[in-house]
Amino acid sequence: MKKIINDPSAVVDEMIKGMVFAYDGLVERLPETNVVHRKHSKNGKVGLVSGGGSGHEPAHAGFVGQGMLSAAVCGEVFTSPTPDQILEAIKASDEGNGVFMVIKNYSGDIMNFEMAKDLADMEDIPVDFVVVDDDIAVEDSTYTAGKRGIAGTVLVHKILGAAAEEGASLSEIKELADKLVPAIKSIGVALSPATNPEVGKPGFEIGDDEIEFGVGIHGEPGYRREKLQPSKDLAAELVKQLKKEFQWSGDEQYALLINGMGATPLMEQFVFTNDVRELLAAEGITLVFKKVGDYMTSIDMAGVSITLLKLEDEKWVDYLTAPVNTISW
Amino acid sequence: MKKIINDPSAVVDEMIKGMVFAYDGLVERLPETNVVHRKHSKNGKVGLVSGGGSGHEPAHAGFVGQGMLSAAVCGEVFTSPTPDQILEAIKASDEGNGVFMVIKNYSGDIMNFEMAKDLADMEDIPVDFVVVDDDIAVEDSTYTAGKRGIAGTVLVHKILGAAAEEGASLSEIKELADKLVPAIKSIGVALSPATNPEVGKPGFEIGDDEIEFGVGIHGEPGYRREKLQPSKDLAAELVKQLKKEFQWSGDEQYALLINGMGATPLMEQFVFTNDVRELLAAEGITLVFKKVGDYMTSIDMAGVSITLLKLEDEKWVDYLTAPVNTISW
Repeated sequence: MKKIINDPSAVVDEMIKGMVFAYDGLVERLPETNVVHRKHSKNGKVGLVSGGGSGHEPAHAGFVGQGMLSAAVCGEVFTSPTPDQILEAIKASDEGNGVFMVIKNYSGDIMNFEMAKDLADMEDIPVDFVVVDDDIAVEDSTYTAGKRGIAGTVLVHKILGAAAEEGASLSEIKELADKLVPAIKSIGVALSPATNPEVGKPGFEIGDDEIEFGVGIHGEPGYRREKLQPSKDLAAELVKQLKKEFQWSGDEQYALLINGMGATPLMEQFVFTNDVRELLAAEGITLVFKKVGDYMTSIDMAGVSITLLKLEDEKWVDYLTAPVNTISW
Repeated sequence: MKKIINDPSAVVDEMIKGMVFAYDGLVERLPETNVVHRKHSKNGKVGLVSGGGSGHEPAHAGFVGQGMLSAAVCGEVFTSPTPDQILEAIKASDEGNGVFMVIKNYSGDIMNFEMAKDLADMEDIPVDFVVVDDDIAVEDSTYTAGKRGIAGTVLVHKILGAAAEEGASLSEIKELADKLVPAIKSIGVALSPATNPEVGKPGFEIGDDEIEFGVGIHGEPGYRREKLQPSKDLAAELVKQLKKEFQWSGDEQYALLINGMGATPLMEQFVFTNDVRELLAAEGITLVFKKVGDYMTSIDMAGVSITLLKLEDEKWVDYLTAPVNTISW
């Protein structure tokens, strides 16, 4: 394992220290926790909390800040954060009008975030949540019943964050989230596995000439392994799967997020984006919002994912483009 | 070579297409060139042009936008852009008050940017420039007489961009640049080489248990190869070299940029940042501006660099923090 780390079991602690030092104008760490909270004066808005296992940086702490998340709970690498830590995030994020949680669909995350909600109920903090399951690659997976939550989660952070900033109530945010999540679908391809520093070896084996479609962000199995192929063929396969799900007619508007998995340079991400551009243009799809980069990674995995959000409400575009003050949006 | 690309010789063209598609609100490609230019109405400010070989994304096109670069010229991978392309960038960036060029210290870049300046002189466009040579690792290198230009260049873009935005004249920007560049020093460590897609194999060989201090952003040799060691030891070696150069007394103020080389995940960058934080705190250094992430990469090289800018003028902090509208700052 060739990594710039010290003690593998201290990676999350040291990473958070580095992050809150570098961006001390934006975020702070809640004492004695792995919760990254935004620095700002409370103004009665609904709090927005997300989190999960670490290893997906900049998700989620990189999206903490005005207009996006109030706090992110950083679990150990690829491990759900504990309910007590999530509760601390909720308490710190409550400004008197409740807290909304964005949970990726992994069984451990759901269990622990729901438990934290129960604990918050006992402290009379109203909490509601949504479970993001945007990954269309497989049904049920190593850590998931149903579909996994991946890069599309970042669009949920952005849109709900803008709505909260605008003053939406907890029930309005819940209603928006329930409409939004089913409109988001993602799918990816991996070229190489991630190495969890606490494990010390790659999460799976793959040949030098092989790629795997639909690998999860913790290295969960995908749906098909093939020989390495040109970017445009990878893009064609993934767009085909998205088309099957959305069954678009060609006159809808979408937002597009091309996401790097951690070790894929921007050079390749933009080449891939160009192929996706051509394919979606040929389908007659109008893309009114686009973003490319590392948003929901899998440590040092090489690969990319495509996320499409069907824009059923023009307000969503305003939310996507509203200004934020975060490390990584 | 395992990459998400199509034709290796078309990588730069397709990358630019993907970038200007994804960020069409911010940037555009000058027709028939590899120049990425910002979309904005001309307002008589001094134009700021940079560029160089591709493979360092987001540098330089990711820093094109209001408050930073007017245009970036994208050469082929690890290859200087040609004078005619640079001239097109100059012509498009001139708003009537001349153009300033930020050149990294590589012999090919200097030759071609100076030739472009001569061509611009013939068209009566006043052009001046600065050569950035922030890499303290080695004196003279594969493509360089003197010291190489690396990640510190991005701080030059930011500070000069803010000065230009504020209305500084060409001679004022030249004066600022000449004061600024000697105050910036960088040094890095590589864990793995980059693979140039047009070459198809890694730029150098390094053992699974080895690292190399001072490797250049094109894989130029560094100053020492050692066994892999903890992040804090890597940080200690690099900070020691920076201290030797700056000979700080402990009461100066600095700006810090921790830069990922392309394949090093943010997790590791933040762990490393935490080690640099401790070392600089022990030296009594005050850091009034900090930034961490991929800014000047070497395609898919794993590694990090540290850049320190000695803040000799408090105005420089204002310039560093002034708002910009770019893809990647």
